[in-house]
Amino acid sequence: MSTNNANHTPVTVIGLGLMGQALAGSFLREGHPTTVWNRTAAKADQLVAQGATLAGSVGEAVAASPLVVVCVTDYDAVHGLLDPLGAVLDGRVLVNLGSGTSQGARETAEWAARQGGAYLDGAIMAVPAEIGADAVITYSGPRSAFELYEPALRSLGSGTTYLGDDHTLSALHEMAVLSLMWNVLNGFLQGAALLGAAGVRAGAFAPLAGKGIEIVNGWLADYAEQVDNGAYPALDSTIDTHLAAMDHLIHESESLGVSAELPRFIKALTDRAVADGRGGDGYAAMVEQFRKPS
Amino acid sequence: MSTNNANHTPVTVIGLGLMGQALAGSFLREGHPTTVWNRTAAKADQLVAQGATLAGSVGEAVAASPLVVVCVTDYDAVHGLLDPLGAVLDGRVLVNLGSGTSQGARETAEWAARQGGAYLDGAIMAVPAEIGADAVITYSGPRSAFELYEPALRSLGSGTTYLGDDHTLSALHEMAVLSLMWNVLNGFLQGAALLGAAGVRAGAFAPLAGKGIEIVNGWLADYAEQVDNGAYPALDSTIDTHLAAMDHLIHESESLGVSAELPRFIKALTDRAVADGRGGDGYAAMVEQFRKPS
Ligand SMILES: NC(=O)c1ccc[n+]([C@@H]2O[C@H](COP(=O)([O-])OP(=O)(O)OC[C@H]3O[C@@H](n4cnc5c(N)ncnc54)[C@H](OP(=O)(O)O)[C@@H]3O)[C@@H](O)[C@H]2O)c1
Ligand SMILES: NC(=O)c1ccc[n+]([C@@H]2O[C@H](COP(=O)([O-])OP(=O)(O)OC[C@H]3O[C@@H](n4cnc5c(N)ncnc54)[C@H](OP(=O)(O)O)[C@@H]3O)[C@@H](O)[C@H]2O)c1
Repeated sequence: MSTNNANHTPVTVIGLGLMGQALAGSFLREGHPTTVWNRTAAKADQLVAQGATLAGSVGEAVAASPLVVVCVTDYDAVHGLLDPLGAVLDGRVLVNLGSGTSQGARETAEWAARQGGAYLDGAIMAVPAEIGADAVITYSGPRSAFELYEPALRSLGSGTTYLGDDHTLSALHEMAVLSLMWNVLNGFLQGAALLGAAGVRAGAFAPLAGKGIEIVNGWLADYAEQVDNGAYPALDSTIDTHLAAMDHLIHESESLGVSAELPRFIKALTDRAVADGRGGDGYAAMVEQFRKPS
Repeated sequence: MSTNNANHTPVTVIGLGLMGQALAGSFLREGHPTTVWNRTAAKADQLVAQGATLAGSVGEAVAASPLVVVCVTDYDAVHGLLDPLGAVLDGRVLVNLGSGTSQGARETAEWAARQGGAYLDGAIMAVPAEIGADAVITYSGPRSAFELYEPALRSLGSGTTYLGDDHTLSALHEMAVLSLMWNVLNGFLQGAALLGAAGVRAGAFAPLAGKGIEIVNGWLADYAEQVDNGAYPALDSTIDTHLAAMDHLIHESESLGVSAELPRFIKALTDRAVADGRGGDGYAAMVEQFRKPS
């Protein structure tokens, strides 16, 4: 377990789905002795051809390296594979890059500690093609474990980001980013439905939509500052002004015969911000509505 | 009215708020003889110092140029200014760059035709600082009117886009882009509220959020193609998979004591897509939910 030559840390990758294969491939390309294991062994063939060692069992795979990366569907699969092994971690660092909940992260950290290992919970905010390039991958758990293997983990993406000691942070960030993605997609699809009813193809809307998204992306740092300061001076438009435009959107949707549900939902939330006295503030004040338990 | 030397079309700008001043400033910089008018005359001072001519009345302002751009708060303000003038358009092209509804665009086109002029309804999808640079500005109305003044209108932004004959298209596109913006912001603010409850500053979330938004932006062309084709093969994740993650988000929100309303709304919509047999499709299939009248 003492092997930690920065560039040649032996690593194990358990789970060789679309993502696990990309992870193992990156470690190999960066020169790490790489041991792999997958329930369906055939998925290791290409990696073995590239120099990976196929372990004969999960236990052998874990034993092979001080850094063990798991990337399977969910925590049930993780525990189905690792729990039967017993106290095998023995000073190793276990990194889980599969998706999951903060509860799963917390429980797995406790489990790893009982097995004598350290646990880092990670979240991959990228597609397999970005692994080894500009993939953003977050890690949460003991800083010492992260720092020990940071050079090896950086093989997986230049967007390697340590979030803090609290094991739940990666899962929460992943949730927040996923939620943002659904909202962006819903906004696009609602717009496509509206314009589609007026005879406009989604393909014609996409470039404008992309430009709108880029503009908003440029605002995030300012919005974040307002959220952190708890003060929301209107830099551009006030919530009152937005509200008037939301009314227009509802009417346009209704008169074109497409769903006005999402616009109505957004307007109802915005109405509450106005009722709370936020009409003259900027849109960032809406964060207070999202903070209320519901 | 015959003056249309491509680079020196005389133009009039009525309304010198934040946006109108930027528009007039751009015309001036590009060498257009520029006449301006504003209810509060003092807002013209800087432009006059840069070479603009201040008209003594709205009527004089309209009479001064073959291309008349109006940018005031709303259609009520537009009609409050222009209706009293009578049949003053006389072969001119009136361009309205203020925000409004498709009904306002339709009515103003009819009004302009009665006054002997042509009407282009425009929408500015940019902030004043982008005017004269990479601003996206859309136009809808008679193609001949757009083409006649396209070189002049391009002074306002390299993203000058003609949408078609139908006057309502600019207002509808503006609505669709605004709606997209609210959705993006709601996604960000909901995420900031969730992470805030776990002690994470919005400023720390913003860069990750920006990356997530960029990733989705890269998907739009493929999503649009699926929407236009009415077939939604799952390129990455299925709706069933998204649904499971939505459940996680609801639980995380509830257990951190922040609002789960938006996640619940999104999940309810997604549940309906599954009930419609779309669980195995990609997220683009959600467009069908947005198309249903509600
Ligand atoms: N793909 C992406 O773009 C992406 C992005 C971010 C995060 N992720 C996350 O990464 C994880 C893996 O994703 P993926 O795309 O690689 O999925 P995938 O292609 O479906 O692969 C799933 C992997 O999990 C294994 N597995 C599932 N259940 C198992 C069990 N009970 N016992 C043992 N192994 C089991 C599979 O083994 P078999 O080969 O034997 O079935 C396979 O290796 C997921 O949590 C996903 O959310 C993926
Ligand atoms: N600013 C942006 O980022 C932006 C972006 C896209 C679209 N727009 C649209 O552009 C339009 C103007 O926006 P803005 O930012 O320039 O707003 P603004 O700074 O508030 O200016 C409003 C302008 O409208 C005039 N006005 C309002 N009511 C009037 C009335 N009844 N009679 C005569 N003039 C009247 C004002 O004249 P006074 O100076 O005399 O008050 C002023 O010139 C709006 O429709 C807005 O939605 C703005």
